[in-house]
Amino acid sequence: MNQQYPSVLLEKAVDEFSKLPGIGRKTAMRLVLHLLRQEKKDVESFGNSIITLKREVKYCKVCHNISDTEVCRICSTPSRDASTVCVVENIRDVMAVENTQQFNGLYHVLGGVISPMDGVGPSDLQIDSLVDRVRNGGVKEIILALSSTMEGDTTNFYIFRKLAGYDVKVSVISRGISIGDELQYTDEVTLGRSIVNRIEFTGRM
Amino acid sequence: MNQQYPSVLLEKAVDEFSKLPGIGRKTAMRLVLHLLRQEKKDVESFGNSIITLKREVKYCKVCHNISDTEVCRICSTPSRDASTVCVVENIRDVMAVENTQQFNGLYHVLGGVISPMDGVGPSDLQIDSLVDRVRNGGVKEIILALSSTMEGDTTNFYIFRKLAGYDVKVSVISRGISIGDELQYTDEVTLGRSIVNRIEFTGRM
Repeated sequence: MNQQYPSVLLEKAVDEFSKLPGIGRKTAMRLVLHLLRQEKKDVESFGNSIITLKREVKYCKVCHNISDTEVCRICSTPSRDASTVCVVENIRDVMAVENTQQFNGLYHVLGGVISPMDGVGPSDLQIDSLVDRVRNGGVKEIILALSSTMEGDTTNFYIFRKLAGYDVKVSVISRGISIGDELQYTDEVTLGRSIVNRIEFTGRM
Repeated sequence: MNQQYPSVLLEKAVDEFSKLPGIGRKTAMRLVLHLLRQEKKDVESFGNSIITLKREVKYCKVCHNISDTEVCRICSTPSRDASTVCVVENIRDVMAVENTQQFNGLYHVLGGVISPMDGVGPSDLQIDSLVDRVRNGGVKEIILALSSTMEGDTTNFYIFRKLAGYDVKVSVISRGISIGDELQYTDEVTLGRSIVNRIEFTGRM
């Protein structure tokens, strides 16, 4: 459909929105017209929020998480256990683990997983800096918390090998059926693994 | 879920995106992280496109469509038939009718339909200016092309009554089953209307 936009400015804004993942031209138009109905100051606040973020965002020099400061809030909290480092793919995973309130260590954000298909190699990720953290001492355990995909598994193995010479325990988050899941709806690979990796039942879950 | 954002700037950008219709906090986060991975100049282009649009957008003083100029491209095209005015709710409807390439007249953008539930009365819409266009002469036919809803019908009647004293033909776009639709899947109101409003079959559709 060759859309004739009534205004070049409108077309430009729709173009920009439709570059976002999952946003087609129809949705882009709807969002732009919505913004156009808002107050001028609200529209400027919207536009400037992302420009300011891009311009001023920092990445923690320890864990590479997004941060407003040189060292992020998590890494600079003294009560957190600096000897345990949880390795995750991205910022969202840090937030997901934080939300569980089950982890009091620090993080290391890789920035992705090894994926030859997408042209992502080990050097594109924060793996060397992870090895540096271990080499510098103080880290007793690395918890690999990557996606349960082929790429995640590949990255797990790569990091495991890289850390082979160091006095550090490497563990991986457990995989199995989700809590609340019914067995009949669990995929067979997950179910198979959860049988193989069964743990002793102690009366507590 | 009480999300702990690692950065205030990030949280602000996610807040702004999640104000958009149909965008939840998870999608907002995904969009913001996508933008954060883009080049700085592309992010500024994105942010500025909407700010510039809001700041510089004009509305055609004849038809009230969005425009870059005082009088829009459609209204200022001499080859278009100024005696026929198609009344639509919004800018998207202008684009939809234009895309059919079946209409060579001008438009009048109401800016919505009468909807007491949403607090939209006749004075919130460009109805008086439509009557002015008719009063000023030169308009032979008004085509009402509003949504086929109760609000659309109410607005049709309101405009029809307002134009009662003027020498202008008022028509309404035909409703019926969509071309390509199967009868069994057409809702009964539409099907009923399309039987009542049947037209003589001339061998052409």
